[in-house]
Amino acid sequence: MTQHVTLTGAAASSTLPDAGTRAHARLARPVVPAGTHRGAGLGEVRLTGGFWGRLQETNAAATLDHCLAWMERLGWVENFDRVAQGTTGGHRPGWQFSDSEVYKLVEALAWEHGRTGDARVEAMLGGLVDRIAAAQDADGYLNTCYGHAGQPGRYTDLERGHELYCTGHLLQAAVARVRTVGEDLLVAVARRAADEVCREFGAGAREGLCGHPEIEVGLAELGRALDEPRYTEQARLFVERRGRGTLGPIPLLSPAYFQDDVPVREADVWRGHAVRALYLAAGAADVAVDTGDDELLAAVERQWSRSVERRTFLTGGMGSRHQDEGFGDDFELSPDRAYCETCAGVASVMVSWRLYLATGEVRYADLMERTFYNVVATSPRTDGRAFFYANPLQQRVAGADVRPDAENPRAEGGVRAPWFDVSCCPTNVARTLATWHLYAVSVDGDTVTLVQHAAGDVRVVLDDGGELALTVRTGYPRTGDVAVEVTGAPDRPVTLRMRVPHWADGARLTDPDGTAGPAAPGWAEVTRTFAAGDEVVLRLPVAPRLTWPDPRVDAVRGTVAVERGPLVLCLESVDLPAGVELEDVRLDVAAPLADDDDGARARGLALPPTGDGTGRPPFAAGPPNPGAGEPVELRLVPYQRWAERGPSTMRVFVPTA
Amino acid sequence: MTQHVTLTGAAASSTLPDAGTRAHARLARPVVPAGTHRGAGLGEVRLTGGFWGRLQETNAAATLDHCLAWMERLGWVENFDRVAQGTTGGHRPGWQFSDSEVYKLVEALAWEHGRTGDARVEAMLGGLVDRIAAAQDADGYLNTCYGHAGQPGRYTDLERGHELYCTGHLLQAAVARVRTVGEDLLVAVARRAADEVCREFGAGAREGLCGHPEIEVGLAELGRALDEPRYTEQARLFVERRGRGTLGPIPLLSPAYFQDDVPVREADVWRGHAVRALYLAAGAADVAVDTGDDELLAAVERQWSRSVERRTFLTGGMGSRHQDEGFGDDFELSPDRAYCETCAGVASVMVSWRLYLATGEVRYADLMERTFYNVVATSPRTDGRAFFYANPLQQRVAGADVRPDAENPRAEGGVRAPWFDVSCCPTNVARTLATWHLYAVSVDGDTVTLVQHAAGDVRVVLDDGGELALTVRTGYPRTGDVAVEVTGAPDRPVTLRMRVPHWADGARLTDPDGTAGPAAPGWAEVTRTFAAGDEVVLRLPVAPRLTWPDPRVDAVRGTVAVERGPLVLCLESVDLPAGVELEDVRLDVAAPLADDDDGARARGLALPPTGDGTGRPPFAAGPPNPGAGEPVELRLVPYQRWAERGPSTMRVFVPTA
Repeated sequence: MTQHVTLTGAAASSTLPDAGTRAHARLARPVVPAGTHRGAGLGEVRLTGGFWGRLQETNAAATLDHCLAWMERLGWVENFDRVAQGTTGGHRPGWQFSDSEVYKLVEALAWEHGRTGDARVEAMLGGLVDRIAAAQDADGYLNTCYGHAGQPGRYTDLERGHELYCTGHLLQAAVARVRTVGEDLLVAVARRAADEVCREFGAGAREGLCGHPEIEVGLAELGRALDEPRYTEQARLFVERRGRGTLGPIPLLSPAYFQDDVPVREADVWRGHAVRALYLAAGAADVAVDTGDDELLAAVERQWSRSVERRTFLTGGMGSRHQDEGFGDDFELSPDRAYCETCAGVASVMVSWRLYLATGEVRYADLMERTFYNVVATSPRTDGRAFFYANPLQQRVAGADVRPDAENPRAEGGVRAPWFDVSCCPTNVARTLATWHLYAVSVDGDTVTLVQHAAGDVRVVLDDGGELALTVRTGYPRTGDVAVEVTGAPDRPVTLRMRVPHWADGARLTDPDGTAGPAAPGWAEVTRTFAAGDEVVLRLPVAPRLTWPDPRVDAVRGTVAVERGPLVLCLESVDLPAGVELEDVRLDVAAPLADDDDGARARGLALPPTGDGTGRPPFAAGPPNPGAGEPVELRLVPYQRWAERGPSTMRVFVPTA
Repeated sequence: MTQHVTLTGAAASSTLPDAGTRAHARLARPVVPAGTHRGAGLGEVRLTGGFWGRLQETNAAATLDHCLAWMERLGWVENFDRVAQGTTGGHRPGWQFSDSEVYKLVEALAWEHGRTGDARVEAMLGGLVDRIAAAQDADGYLNTCYGHAGQPGRYTDLERGHELYCTGHLLQAAVARVRTVGEDLLVAVARRAADEVCREFGAGAREGLCGHPEIEVGLAELGRALDEPRYTEQARLFVERRGRGTLGPIPLLSPAYFQDDVPVREADVWRGHAVRALYLAAGAADVAVDTGDDELLAAVERQWSRSVERRTFLTGGMGSRHQDEGFGDDFELSPDRAYCETCAGVASVMVSWRLYLATGEVRYADLMERTFYNVVATSPRTDGRAFFYANPLQQRVAGADVRPDAENPRAEGGVRAPWFDVSCCPTNVARTLATWHLYAVSVDGDTVTLVQHAAGDVRVVLDDGGELALTVRTGYPRTGDVAVEVTGAPDRPVTLRMRVPHWADGARLTDPDGTAGPAAPGWAEVTRTFAAGDEVVLRLPVAPRLTWPDPRVDAVRGTVAVERGPLVLCLESVDLPAGVELEDVRLDVAAPLADDDDGARARGLALPPTGDGTGRPPFAAGPPNPGAGEPVELRLVPYQRWAERGPSTMRVFVPTA
């Protein structure tokens, strides 16, 4: 039923030099569409500390091991062994989609190994890939929950089975591998799995779909990585098939839950399960770009616009509803029940990156920054060993301590947990952090763009030949100065382009001559024949600022948020004076905000507590008359760090005084 | 496995005279606790038209048949036949709890027959009871989903199986029967079922619980009705057993979902699934009263207070979350995602009525009025053939048309539907409307209390002998005058007591001498030796009024609601001028409200639509500056009637200008 490919041993045992010095991996990156913009490759960017560098190091040092240990402990890896050994049947640990967590970890390991060449990481990966490969059926089918003795048959529950979803993650992991080391065992496994999918679901074969999109993006990128147009075509088929009521009903959920209600190219907005909607959009964008389908690309862009403008939280988080982990109606954005699944943040970044590469529009990069800082970076605890699954913008009741040795409920808690019953987020964070730097820089002809701002070294291959080498020095987002020193440049005019975030009114750019000028939100650029030692400095005003809700967002009327640079701030109960309850605090918007490290201080008012005892619902015959209240200094901290100091109540939107 | 009891034929064929003339049924009522306050019996109150009289007539004329037709069509009644015939196994239509819908319909039919003596209703009931009885196992077990050939074994899934829940509804139906006609086949069936439960789950036997409370309230009332202390004791055991982690986990839900987290007498607030929490509280109140357990009664009162003051919507609706149909955290009261299940409204009334009878406190009657008018009466369409399952206070997107011939999704829609996949609400509405008048009047010694105001005839047996007969004339709630004419009275001083709702500031009472005086919220009473022809008039100010949210209710800050008498009003898109969107409307609280039939007119402002195109989430660097706007007259209508004129958008809380 299963077979080994001889490549394994070599790949598993080889210690690779640092990616930056290997020709093969130098341009390795997750998304390689047709078109002029390309993201920087593994060998072209290196973070040197800073906000994201630290997250990336913690991911490498803690999260990867953490995920592997949990999946070993829970038997999710052993599920592969049982298929290989023919001992399936009886209790199988994990949800039907647990294979995908193993694949996402493999993907994270592959990118991490590509980034650093770490032999220990390569050994972890090799061990997993051997066990995965051993579980593959002779015809390429690979799943530990279906199709073997004592299990339901293959593809017998397309609505809920997640088989193609799992395969999609396998393919994404293989993409990481083929781009960092070339064709190894994992890639061979993925090829065979993709071929099986094409045979089973190709044109003229089974007109099926997976309840959870993901196979589309996996096939599309593997098609690019292996130059296999058949895979792209199969991705296209899956995208086109969707929205036509192909999937059967799931009790209590509508076809919109898995986007089978409206064809992708006809839809105007994302709806239903957020991660599904966004993975599908990412796959559709890939297909659109690779097939030159401008109508489809325009549809994804249209959906992005409406969904961002009407169904997205201040943090960039998506998903307003717990019930179906889904988008809500337009402007249904309650902070307390915000779902904002971490995985939806990851998926949103996947979509925006594809649209940025396809169009070069700054709005996509702006949303990526918002989502990176306030969703993706919010999930992992500082030690990289606990995570938020949901990311609400208000916590009314301080969370209870989590169970350190058991799977925790995923979406209620207010405390980061080591692992969840449904544990998709930790591995999604891991694979994203391992590649974060690859979303920070893009290249288009002789233009090099700093899409995200982070301290690091950049040395990109220009499309027209030669290299541009830069050293970026910045304390961003704590400080707003981004200094870019040119350390190497071709002997012709090239363009250095830097993103000025939409919130950065008053930004200024200083060119190598020392000439400073205003830099409006959008792109600031300098074109010249650079010499080593030239410096360009972008000064972004990161001082705390008030942010007001659109009047159509009912749930936060009469409140204001405080942001600082790209960081959404919040008020946590642990920062309030003794005796003051979060629900009684008001913010005085007339008073200036003060900078406070990476947070802010604001003038507030602590109102007298409102009493109970009416015996009636909390509504009254007259307008609220809270009395004078006591002045109180409010300390606001980055939302991204909340609940790091123990369970607390929290709110991003504070009622105005 | 099953047997018939010979009583059937007689009971099913007898045509009973009107309840009011039958000694047996005259005092028949749903809840008969120990204590001094008692509710009026079937023969003591009769509605004569009016708001509730019309609903009751529609229930009789349309809803009962409607429910039976759907349950026949879907095979939910036939499930009983298949058990009787020994043909179980294979596909069984309906959820595992569909038996309970049949029982609730039987209960409604029993009360309706008791109210009117209608032979057709009796025949419907008899036909159902025959089929139910035929499905009972020899040892009393009765369930169509478990315990027979091809089915899971009895009590093998206490968490989700709903077996005892179904039995509880059977017992409630039998209570209606024993009180209206005496011991018939249904009562015999219920006795045997209750005995089986006592044997199986009694002290020293299985320490089990049902995931969905209901058996408690069924056993307690059947114990009262049949003077069987064993049943009361079994109810007490179930109440005491709960909250100790007896039930196993349900994936993705916490033990609070079915109130197995905290013992009933220790809990401070209702939490988890709202209907479960409230049915349990009703059963606990029964047990507390019957066993003289003041601590337990105080616990239920405490839970009522905190839950009403912090977790209850303006409509009286309970349940803030769709995911678990449950209560949310304190002050988590978003109007758009308000669940406010119709059944939770019914259950809330059940609890409040028990607490009113136990304590005589007016707050319980006030909440009942709020819930009756704005939840229970909101569910059924005017024709009694379609229902709301959930009752949100804001509809952002006009609902789509429902499927007239298929089960509809229960909680998303914005349009009343004929039937649901989970269809607990129609039968719950039916049994409540059939008995509504029995919650309108109570008796305590020589005091007769008009708890709810409705046109009708009252002729109550006083505890100290004699009768007080009254004719109530009122257009309430459209008009606020309630005129009570005494048509018969004993020759001694007795007290007529009328409820002055908490919102009725400025109410006045005129006594039989024509002397008028202020009547403060609470109770207004006249004690005297009444003579036929005496009239007492209570004048309640029902003019439209503004109602303001407690500042702790974040979701509706900056808004106001309009109420009129007991009716919560709402703004529906169908009442807006062409071109004005509901989201752009503001209400001018400085302008007077005008009366408009049973609604109101208010001065409003239509703001210019807010545009999109930012490419960013709906938050901005400056406070909203909507511009001047156009004056617009706003017509507000009773929330209870919304969506009667086709799909619409709707809001109860309107932002202030």
